[in-house]
Amino acid sequence: MERRNVGILGATGMVGQRFIQLLSNHPWFEITWLAASDRSAGKTYADACRWKLDTPLPKRIAGMTLQPNVPEGAVGELPKIIFAALDADIARDLEPKFASAGCAVISNSSAFRMVSDVPLVVPEVNADHLSLIEKQTWRREAQPGSHPGGYIVTNPNCCAIGLVLPLKALEEKFGIESLFVSTMQAVSGAGYPGVASLDILGNVIPFIKNEEEKLQEEVFKLLGAYKGDHIEMLEARLTAHCNRVAVEDGHMECVSIKLRKPATHEEILAAWADFNPLAGQHLPSAPDQPIEYDHAIDRPQPRLDRMRGKGMASTVGRLRPCSLLDWKFVVLSHNTIRGAAGAAILNAEVLARLGKFESKKKLVTA
Amino acid sequence: MERRNVGILGATGMVGQRFIQLLSNHPWFEITWLAASDRSAGKTYADACRWKLDTPLPKRIAGMTLQPNVPEGAVGELPKIIFAALDADIARDLEPKFASAGCAVISNSSAFRMVSDVPLVVPEVNADHLSLIEKQTWRREAQPGSHPGGYIVTNPNCCAIGLVLPLKALEEKFGIESLFVSTMQAVSGAGYPGVASLDILGNVIPFIKNEEEKLQEEVFKLLGAYKGDHIEMLEARLTAHCNRVAVEDGHMECVSIKLRKPATHEEILAAWADFNPLAGQHLPSAPDQPIEYDHAIDRPQPRLDRMRGKGMASTVGRLRPCSLLDWKFVVLSHNTIRGAAGAAILNAEVLARLGKFESKKKLVTA
Amino acid sequence: MERRNVGILGATGMVGQRFIQLLSNHPWFEITWLAASDRSAGKTYADACRWKLDTPLPKRIAGMTLQPNVPEGAVGELPKIIFAALDADIARDLEPKFASAGCAVISNSSAFRMVSDVPLVVPEVNADHLSLIEKQTWRREAQPGSHPGGYIVTNPNCCAIGLVLPLKALEEKFGIESLFVSTMQAVSGAGYPGVASLDILGNVIPFIKNEEEKLQEEVFKLLGAYKGDHIEMLEARLTAHCNRVAVEDGHMECVSIKLRKPATHEEILAAWADFNPLAGQHLPSAPDQPIEYDHAIDRPQPRLDRMRGKGMASTVGRLRPCSLLDWKFVVLSHNTIRGAAGAAILNAEVLARLGKFESKKKLVTA
Amino acid sequence: MERRNVGILGATGMVGQRFIQLLSNHPWFEITWLAASDRSAGKTYADACRWKLDTPLPKRIAGMTLQPNVPEGAVGELPKIIFAALDADIARDLEPKFASAGCAVISNSSAFRMVSDVPLVVPEVNADHLSLIEKQTWRREAQPGSHPGGYIVTNPNCCAIGLVLPLKALEEKFGIESLFVSTMQAVSGAGYPGVASLDILGNVIPFIKNEEEKLQEEVFKLLGAYKGDHIEMLEARLTAHCNRVAVEDGHMECVSIKLRKPATHEEILAAWADFNPLAGQHLPSAPDQPIEYDHAIDRPQPRLDRMRGKGMASTVGRLRPCSLLDWKFVVLSHNTIRGAAGAAILNAEVLARLGKFESKKKLVTA
Repeated sequence: MERRNVGILGATGMVGQRFIQLLSNHPWFEITWLAASDRSAGKTYADACRWKLDTPLPKRIAGMTLQPNVPEGAVGELPKIIFAALDADIARDLEPKFASAGCAVISNSSAFRMVSDVPLVVPEVNADHLSLIEKQTWRREAQPGSHPGGYIVTNPNCCAIGLVLPLKALEEKFGIESLFVSTMQAVSGAGYPGVASLDILGNVIPFIKNEEEKLQEEVFKLLGAYKGDHIEMLEARLTAHCNRVAVEDGHMECVSIKLRKPATHEEILAAWADFNPLAGQHLPSAPDQPIEYDHAIDRPQPRLDRMRGKGMASTVGRLRPCSLLDWKFVVLSHNTIRGAAGAAILNAEVLARLGKFESKKKLVTA
Repeated sequence: MERRNVGILGATGMVGQRFIQLLSNHPWFEITWLAASDRSAGKTYADACRWKLDTPLPKRIAGMTLQPNVPEGAVGELPKIIFAALDADIARDLEPKFASAGCAVISNSSAFRMVSDVPLVVPEVNADHLSLIEKQTWRREAQPGSHPGGYIVTNPNCCAIGLVLPLKALEEKFGIESLFVSTMQAVSGAGYPGVASLDILGNVIPFIKNEEEKLQEEVFKLLGAYKGDHIEMLEARLTAHCNRVAVEDGHMECVSIKLRKPATHEEILAAWADFNPLAGQHLPSAPDQPIEYDHAIDRPQPRLDRMRGKGMASTVGRLRPCSLLDWKFVVLSHNTIRGAAGAAILNAEVLARLGKFESKKKLVTA
Repeated sequence: MERRNVGILGATGMVGQRFIQLLSNHPWFEITWLAASDRSAGKTYADACRWKLDTPLPKRIAGMTLQPNVPEGAVGELPKIIFAALDADIARDLEPKFASAGCAVISNSSAFRMVSDVPLVVPEVNADHLSLIEKQTWRREAQPGSHPGGYIVTNPNCCAIGLVLPLKALEEKFGIESLFVSTMQAVSGAGYPGVASLDILGNVIPFIKNEEEKLQEEVFKLLGAYKGDHIEMLEARLTAHCNRVAVEDGHMECVSIKLRKPATHEEILAAWADFNPLAGQHLPSAPDQPIEYDHAIDRPQPRLDRMRGKGMASTVGRLRPCSLLDWKFVVLSHNTIRGAAGAAILNAEVLARLGKFESKKKLVTA
Repeated sequence: MERRNVGILGATGMVGQRFIQLLSNHPWFEITWLAASDRSAGKTYADACRWKLDTPLPKRIAGMTLQPNVPEGAVGELPKIIFAALDADIARDLEPKFASAGCAVISNSSAFRMVSDVPLVVPEVNADHLSLIEKQTWRREAQPGSHPGGYIVTNPNCCAIGLVLPLKALEEKFGIESLFVSTMQAVSGAGYPGVASLDILGNVIPFIKNEEEKLQEEVFKLLGAYKGDHIEMLEARLTAHCNRVAVEDGHMECVSIKLRKPATHEEILAAWADFNPLAGQHLPSAPDQPIEYDHAIDRPQPRLDRMRGKGMASTVGRLRPCSLLDWKFVVLSHNTIRGAAGAAILNAEVLARLGKFESKKKLVTA
């Protein structure tokens, strides 16, 4: 099978680096276009990037020249598939330009997640929401001079992704009424340079800007129902406490949950063990087991469990009764793999399976 | 004023070291007796102890010889006041022996906290519970050969203390119906050597043995009502998630709370600002302001706020509405000062004010 | 005694914060003027500063308004004594302006340390070098419109200060021929935000810009001889390896040394114990014992020993034979107290004793 | 090719776990026997071990029953090849018993490293030293009831291994006269539980028991010359400063070196680039490039570089002139892979190539 060309917007940041790491040997996608801000455009990737991952920067990528982060001028070679790892403010401006240019923008940014015709997707949870793209203006009708067929698909906040996997399994079987979530989040979630070492060594910061708000709204869209032209949010309540801790990678979440129907310990474990909606689809980035339950009394732990399923599994542990709601448990997932770049790539794999990367060839003329 | 002699059981451990640090210039108490396990008894304190605090080991203490941790043989010089920093298993055996010998045992251990005639006290919260000591057998009647008048007083778990201060202020004004608590606790709470560095560097451990259980039961005894011969527990519900993080000192707690009466943001802040039951008593270890509220968006933080009130204040921040219960906020307190040794010393200061250290002189004979 | 007014340039940075912390109860100096960059000028200190120390921001300071960092327009109230905590590039431009305006600029910057008529001073080591200020143009002759009598005095790099104390004691008694120094430096030395947490958590960075060069040249000026109008550098050799480690405060240095005359273990310990050139001068910031030797096999350690002498002592340990040079040992000092703000304040205290703050009153007119 | 059976002594410790991780998919060796202390013998591996690595415990190993750590009683199934991950005190007693029983003991312990007929080997450096085994009594003549042919081969201390790779390349080309080494070592080097978190969070410990001594003597045996029945130590001088830092894995070493012949920067880099004595041997654990030089100004770093060559490469950086000796540079290697378990496995791979695992079949009878 021929590999499809892909481009990366924001290629030098922490999430951009993960895209490169995860895509550099991807069986379906091949990086052919890297873009960065004006400051870096024109440099080689190796010169512009402070590579912070513990696997080597692939040689081919190191030598690639960073392009300006605009679709114009690159139309000839602009890939159909654009992975976007941009800050929300920049994404708000740039992503629509690439969608207008006919690209499938697979975005990790928060800019458009809650827009009604933009799918916010975790494939195991709500792949059916991807149909929303057909409602997007960019896809339906293009501006003169641009290519039709573009769209934006988003993945959620790094905390929401790990959490929503075990939640979906419970929602399907028992229904969810309310949730308490307290997070302990890794510093890589803040990008680079991100959190100052003086702020986090021997310390905890009980605040992450907009994080509690994002978690509270994104979970209900993810668990919501596709209604043709919009998503009906799940009716439930969630309160979040978000904290930054001195961990490099891996977000931990303490969860208490009230279900709509009674569930036993065994039934909950079974719901998680049986949850595998992508089984049999052979998507390269899908973990064999999206939810791994660890029976040890003191697991999951970020350093030991974040790489389960090549960083794509959500590890759950410590299921026990809650004296206030019904049950409590702990969830861990890798925040820059499952929680960011890996999530976007899995979205792209599903879109590929659905045939959503076939270009409508005709350039729209006035 | 003459200083009273005091002894320390378990003097070489982390809490024992804090007792020594905090008592070495105490205006009311003077350390005259140090005891340790058989392995250390007979050595000087300096030889037996790996001093881990960042202030120097006081010279006078360094040269003191550690005594066996039994009251016998030391009756002549055994101080009336014994601070006990023992593991629960050892405390269960040793503390009653010292109470039988006529000592006021001011214990930091969990062994007797929930026993019905043993006061579990944080002076700002429930100093009236101290009257329970008059019901203790050791105090009422001594065995032949022993001194009457002994008793045991306990302070709570390191997490419960910091939390119960802001809770008491709310309980008095508005009543408490239910509580979520998610903790991020410092490694010093596990003693020395305690948590292995391989377990906590770049990591979080979502489990601390018995901690959730202690927190859930101790808070209700602390907020309970003194009924002459027992404490009537507060009727409320609490669920706890306890985690260990890579912080040296200072326990953080994320709290969601449902009150019995409606309270505005301003009313809650006022309740905390006005809370100062020990004001005017001039107790050496009582902080000027037991609850300090910080208005900054990202506070409290362990490294910056744990030493407020010389480590005896509870710092609160981020009061905001909770979408599930009524309000949520963050609490921080120093786990080995306010949460352990300082708590016990403050209990002893209150007992001194109440005249509970006057020995009943007569030796009981058969 | 009346307290002298002092100002602080660069008041909001990490070293500026230490100046405020250490000066806020200083018996000789009173902060009356705070300056910051254009971005912050006009704001209150509390609004402009992210206070990162673990003692509270003094209330009086919190409310002070930050002034522009230029002497003009503030002549009426510009203090004679200016503590400067500026980056080298900015110091190079600003410090001469304040010296021209008649101020005694007590600088922590590297900008002028190696200039021949600028004293680079650690008072216990080379207070006699302060006479160099009389050669400075600013002090001898002022420009029209400015006040004569201004000068610049500098303290060394944070690594050089802790090291030079034990070295001076050895140089005096035995002479120094060569030195190997390998450092492990705290993140606070890089200011705020400084080192990114992703760079230092679970990591070591074996490079600090210009640090090895500074250490190698400053030590020889500090140990050099005052020759009326310049300093004759000490003739010796030093090689440095500088590393950043995950420590908040406190620089560690592993040292191997070759002496010019043979010295026994006891003689070296005696040289350090006897070293106290400021004894009897009653300078508020001078530690009782500038060099503290710790006999424990595993000391000094940053977390336990950096606050010795209120952060102004240099702690030495592990003196043992070196199989290549003569002896090896470990040195620790607090990098933002002894190594920065405290060093500058001690310089100012010596200058006060020497009468170098008496203003020459006359304004120079054309 | 049939895989050879191997056993592991001390299988539950940190190095034992690395043996299991690295051997579980090894093409030449298959784990068939695991032994542990009396306390653990009889349990399954999963029950006895606190698995601390970030890859899952292999299922087959999890279910294996731990055997007593003595050769008797297991003769029938005792593998010829025994990897030993024992503390030195225990190794001193146990390893000879297994050699007596005819086993090839591939030891990571320090117990026999400096014994004259025991090879201390890093294959790229001194594989010829392996011939020493033929001099070992266990190999030449066995006791009645035991199998002849046993022997002990050791690998060096975790610090010596990473260092000796770049040193060997220099020794061959230019000769080594003297060396300064200052280390910053990871906590995993101390085993589990090892270093207490209270000792290392925000801290450095400038002492590791016996480490400086081991480093100083092992390097010279490794670089020494095989003389038929003993090793002639390299004539050179080395002084070491060993420190523990808050890093999980990866030992950093700052090195200053004086060579016997002059060498330019380019010649040294070439010596390192060309150094690959195992090239072409196709040993499964040998890295493609044993010495990787990184030209970035701030590399190597433990978190980013320890996994180069699957944890088997030594990364060097910052080669620059030394003002005291000739050159200085920084070395990094993974302390529990290249520095321990991986080193032993590579030794075994070389022994396999040399045919040193062919059992002499005959049981010795009296």
